Amino acid sequence: MTELYHWFDLIGVAVFAVSGTLIAYDKKMDGFGVVVLATVTAVGGGTLRDLILDVPVFWLHDQSYFVAIFASIFITTRFINKQKSIPYYHLQVADAFGLAFFAVMGAQKALLAGMPATTAIIMGMITGCFGGVIRDVLADNIPMLLKGELYAITCIAGGIVYTQGIAFGIMTEMAMVLAMLTTLILRLAAMKWQLTLHIFKYPD
Amino acid sequence: MTELYHWFDLIGVAVFAVSGTLIAYDKKMDGFGVVVLATVTAVGGGTLRDLILDVPVFWLHDQSYFVAIFASIFITTRFINKQKSIPYYHLQVADAFGLAFFAVMGAQKALLAGMPATTAIIMGMITGCFGGVIRDVLADNIPMLLKGELYAITCIAGGIVYTQGIAFGIMTEMAMVLAMLTTLILRLAAMKWQLTLHIFKYPD
Amino acid sequence: MTELYHWFDLIGVAVFAVSGTLIAYDKKMDGFGVVVLATVTAVGGGTLRDLILDVPVFWLHDQSYFVAIFASIFITTRFINKQKSIPYYHLQVADAFGLAFFAVMGAQKALLAGMPATTAIIMGMITGCFGGVIRDVLADNIPMLLKGELYAITCIAGGIVYTQGIAFGIMTEMAMVLAMLTTLILRLAAMKWQLTLHIFKYPD
Repeated sequence: MTELYHWFDLIGVAVFAVSGTLIAYDKKMDGFGVVVLATVTAVGGGTLRDLILDVPVFWLHDQSYFVAIFASIFITTRFINKQKSIPYYHLQVADAFGLAFFAVMGAQKALLAGMPATTAIIMGMITGCFGGVIRDVLADNIPMLLKGELYAITCIAGGIVYTQGIAFGIMTEMAMVLAMLTTLILRLAAMKWQLTLHIFKYPD
Repeated sequence: MTELYHWFDLIGVAVFAVSGTLIAYDKKMDGFGVVVLATVTAVGGGTLRDLILDVPVFWLHDQSYFVAIFASIFITTRFINKQKSIPYYHLQVADAFGLAFFAVMGAQKALLAGMPATTAIIMGMITGCFGGVIRDVLADNIPMLLKGELYAITCIAGGIVYTQGIAFGIMTEMAMVLAMLTTLILRLAAMKWQLTLHIFKYPD
Repeated sequence: MTELYHWFDLIGVAVFAVSGTLIAYDKKMDGFGVVVLATVTAVGGGTLRDLILDVPVFWLHDQSYFVAIFASIFITTRFINKQKSIPYYHLQVADAFGLAFFAVMGAQKALLAGMPATTAIIMGMITGCFGGVIRDVLADNIPMLLKGELYAITCIAGGIVYTQGIAFGIMTEMAMVLAMLTTLILRLAAMKWQLTLHIFKYPD
């Protein structure tokens, strides 16, 4: 079972590495900087989560994450170099998948560390969103997360589904799948219909 | 007494949440991104302090901070939506109060963790200033802190008053109040008279 | 011997404080903000390393680092105020020396904390590069690190030389010197001949 979680984690890391590589191309970065940006995007959220939870940072003793990241960068750069265009839509879809995997893995890790549900939900959000925030800050973009479109809240929705599912005693795997689908579907819907939440009324 | 400190902490968190919300409005962010920016501003400095001190991050087991943050955001957004203008002056005053509360609470927490006075003063500065630094970086502004006006040094002055007060054996509460007033008055004075410190001589 | 390492660490901190001060001048910052930027640049990478390794942050109980930083800022500001120009070339050379010292000290600290060689190499890279990344993010520049020129990879090369030297049983001091020279020479060469690594083929 732990095996399965590890695979989920690797997939999350891989898709975020893809999104970091695409942003690097978009910003005309090159060389090893691309590797750094992809890596920071992929492991940034989980690293911050582990620092705050005060548990060992997940990649310290496990090098498979770096293999996943290098494979992602390799495949993505070959794809871009062939297409010679940045697939913005694919970037956002990759980001949505990463969000869904990481929100759930983050909430789970926090519950396992004995945190209350609210903290677990926030940890899921940090895991899912902050890799992308660091990516956008380094690339000198305003983080996607801070724009009006539903983003962080999709992680929170996934976190609520997961923690409540566990609290109601449904199977862990079932809770994980339901929570991932919640985040993923909400995020894809937000992208498709530009769902936003308005809390400010700007004068026209 | 601990009760009192907790209230001070909540007030600091609340005023920084206000400043995060105002910056979000200014940058035309909307939706849940505003909540994220306000939250990061409010808890960022203290989180960094706790990570560096290697003590449990203060909000992990205490959800009252999030209640304070949500209340701040709610009130601030209602106020802005009614006024339809950004009260820059109020933003800076809110920031100054947050600075004063956090500089002292940060120095105190470091002393309680057994740190020497210099480290405690730096921790007060980190607690007071870094939430705002993260806020400004995310909003793609050059941090207020790095401009010429007296800012970080007001936290340091407050930290010196607090640690020296404690070292000279005056009552903790008295030291806290004196230190907060030091930071607050210095910062308000710096704003009013644009007090700056010049260490570079730029050619004209 | 530990004495010697401490001196190496101080030199690394000092040269990064110089680079932070130069960037602050370039960005027309002034006042205590310069001190903050120089300090963050100097201790940022090592702080992040220690947080991730979960060892006590190196400057918490040792104030000599702040003495080194203040001395660097003092000398650098006097120099700039006299020259009235920013020595870009010297900035990059200072940065290269800081990189070389920190990459090796970071890898060493990780090995001492019981980390595998890959993690030690990454920790060397974080120690060497992330102070500069934080400096560039705060100054609203795209980090040097992310541009095409050889940068992070010179830290990685130094880290490989160091960890392999230790693995092959050569004297620690010898391994340190060889590794520092590797990083330094590679970085200076990259600057001189604009060595880059291309992983993207941009359409013309």
